[in-house]
Amino acid sequence: MPRPVVALLTDFGSHDHYAGTMKAVVLAICPDVTLVDITHDIPPHDVLTAALELAASYKYFPPGTIFLVVVDPGVGSARRGIVADTGDHRFVAPDNGVLTAALRESPARRVFEMTERKYARPTISRTFEGRDRFAPAAGWLAKGVDLSTFGRSAGAVHQLHIPTPTATGDLLSGEVLRVDRFGNLVTNIDRKLFDQFVHSSGIEIAAATNRIGRVVGTYADAAMDEVCALFGSTDHLEIAVNAGSARDRLNLTRGAPVTIRRT
Amino acid sequence: MPRPVVALLTDFGSHDHYAGTMKAVVLAICPDVTLVDITHDIPPHDVLTAALELAASYKYFPPGTIFLVVVDPGVGSARRGIVADTGDHRFVAPDNGVLTAALRESPARRVFEMTERKYARPTISRTFEGRDRFAPAAGWLAKGVDLSTFGRSAGAVHQLHIPTPTATGDLLSGEVLRVDRFGNLVTNIDRKLFDQFVHSSGIEIAAATNRIGRVVGTYADAAMDEVCALFGSTDHLEIAVNAGSARDRLNLTRGAPVTIRRT
Amino acid sequence: MPRPVVALLTDFGSHDHYAGTMKAVVLAICPDVTLVDITHDIPPHDVLTAALELAASYKYFPPGTIFLVVVDPGVGSARRGIVADTGDHRFVAPDNGVLTAALRESPARRVFEMTERKYARPTISRTFEGRDRFAPAAGWLAKGVDLSTFGRSAGAVHQLHIPTPTATGDLLSGEVLRVDRFGNLVTNIDRKLFDQFVHSSGIEIAAATNRIGRVVGTYADAAMDEVCALFGSTDHLEIAVNAGSARDRLNLTRGAPVTIRRT
Repeated sequence: MPRPVVALLTDFGSHDHYAGTMKAVVLAICPDVTLVDITHDIPPHDVLTAALELAASYKYFPPGTIFLVVVDPGVGSARRGIVADTGDHRFVAPDNGVLTAALRESPARRVFEMTERKYARPTISRTFEGRDRFAPAAGWLAKGVDLSTFGRSAGAVHQLHIPTPTATGDLLSGEVLRVDRFGNLVTNIDRKLFDQFVHSSGIEIAAATNRIGRVVGTYADAAMDEVCALFGSTDHLEIAVNAGSARDRLNLTRGAPVTIRRT
Repeated sequence: MPRPVVALLTDFGSHDHYAGTMKAVVLAICPDVTLVDITHDIPPHDVLTAALELAASYKYFPPGTIFLVVVDPGVGSARRGIVADTGDHRFVAPDNGVLTAALRESPARRVFEMTERKYARPTISRTFEGRDRFAPAAGWLAKGVDLSTFGRSAGAVHQLHIPTPTATGDLLSGEVLRVDRFGNLVTNIDRKLFDQFVHSSGIEIAAATNRIGRVVGTYADAAMDEVCALFGSTDHLEIAVNAGSARDRLNLTRGAPVTIRRT
Repeated sequence: MPRPVVALLTDFGSHDHYAGTMKAVVLAICPDVTLVDITHDIPPHDVLTAALELAASYKYFPPGTIFLVVVDPGVGSARRGIVADTGDHRFVAPDNGVLTAALRESPARRVFEMTERKYARPTISRTFEGRDRFAPAAGWLAKGVDLSTFGRSAGAVHQLHIPTPTATGDLLSGEVLRVDRFGNLVTNIDRKLFDQFVHSSGIEIAAATNRIGRVVGTYADAAMDEVCALFGSTDHLEIAVNAGSARDRLNLTRGAPVTIRRT
């Protein structure tokens, strides 16, 4: 039997012991686990970025993977902890919408509240539930405990607002949702929507007030330092610069409008 | 039998190969090991921060965990390498005080010098003993070698000065010891001392010249952007801002005075 | 039998899901693998830095380790993917010279192109071949598939230009190739060349226009804040400051000239 995989996604950063301590807690419960970092560098409290990073990565993990997702501005408050099972994967997270994008794609079959105290640490810090509630839950899931033992069925879970593009006549209006480390500006316009909207028309693409010259297949298809558009690894339209940073070149970041006009 | 765990804490950062190379050396000696990063982003040469991060995390690791702690401004000089055993955990580190906080809490039963050459790499770089002495020692401990075979008993080990609060009349004077990635200012005033000092008095808390309004249970108990105090995950008083950074708001960092006045 | 080791070296950074997603793909193919990060913080598109970090670390990994090296400014273009076997280690990388330094030291016995589609993901993103081609190849190698099944023999591979020192009369001219997180300026002058050139002469060392006082054995042999030279952990001459950063003190970075004059 393969070792269970626990994949972590948090905003704890790498400067403090927080992520390491969560792994310690998982290992202390389930020593056989394989731990994988998705990232710990979600901007502090940025639930939307966390939701999108999770959605971009979870499907590549082996069946059975347990995702330990802790981006939790409401730590210690009344918001619930939940465990969700899609059949393929399981998720442990605060009920603040951080699972929204992943669960829209892979709907949960079962979601439970995390209220059973015996699957938490004996003392629960109100500022670090990642260590005292979420990591133990992931450890116990890895150990084979069923979700249903964590508490009662969760009912409706919190839905995060994720901006979607709007079409008005010949104008499709989207926006930048993610900026990656290369400075690529990843929009909420996916290839399917793009193809439906554009069909056989000519188009003009703009990022804020910047006209984007053309859609290419990959970065290296553009000239050196050319600003271009392309469909990136999640099949969303992104604004990019070959061998450079579109963020720095255009001075744009999340929320910047990206439009496609049929001509 | 569970796989041995080696947990790493260094100031090597993540931009260079250093931390990865240390893991390579551990794996080459003991292939079955589970490697966990506590952090590699201790500020360069900052033994105090390393000591505090280690103390905040070690106790959550499974019994038997080996801590490979390399923050070592004196690399290659006469300072010793030591291996320490508390009964529950083992530590490999330079004898520069980096274990002080952890060993005050969990005293070492046995401490040995690392002088036995056969547990080091054949050639020892004077600038990277992490690779050539400390990582091999962690690998051999993981492999089952007893501490006592590394060298003679270490005797007294270096004690790091860790600032402690002082009480004068109605004033308790502490200071900020750690600033985490969220900008929380973690002081050296723990809950026990606080409770003893405050007892049933009214109090005024100040961080440098900033009056702190109140002590809350968790960040979300404060108003948005309110500066508050609370007891964090290590049960030390910290100055925090709900959904913000106390460091940035108050422009304070390590060493900033935090006082509690009985009124 | 020990678990196969896959060591990753990329320029994907830690803010995005990219490195985690590559690990997911490897694990989905070979669940028993031990994953080790060398670094993901190679500056974007910096093939030379990646080549040098790889060369500094690969030899410390256990025999059989598979190196998954993805620093790939030409992603999605015509440049090939290759798998190389030195007898001790295997490498998966784009054919852009990123293996040059490692393979000069440990020549490849066999190198194959990665063209066999069944060892890639069914859909290959033209912007993230790390996920869709390189990570699967590493997974299949870990699983036991032989290199030769990935495609035809690669023939000559791309050679990266790595600057080497030149000697003219009594002047040896090198340059800074790497700057580490401590601000040490690591040059391309290795100990062997240095010893041959200097022999028994007196010398003057300069970094750009800065005279360097002396060669020491390790950082702590210099006075506090003294700028000095020493042979670092890869046996290359480096310019350093005890308890400080030579980069910041001298305001120098990669490419800065370092000269040795016989006197």
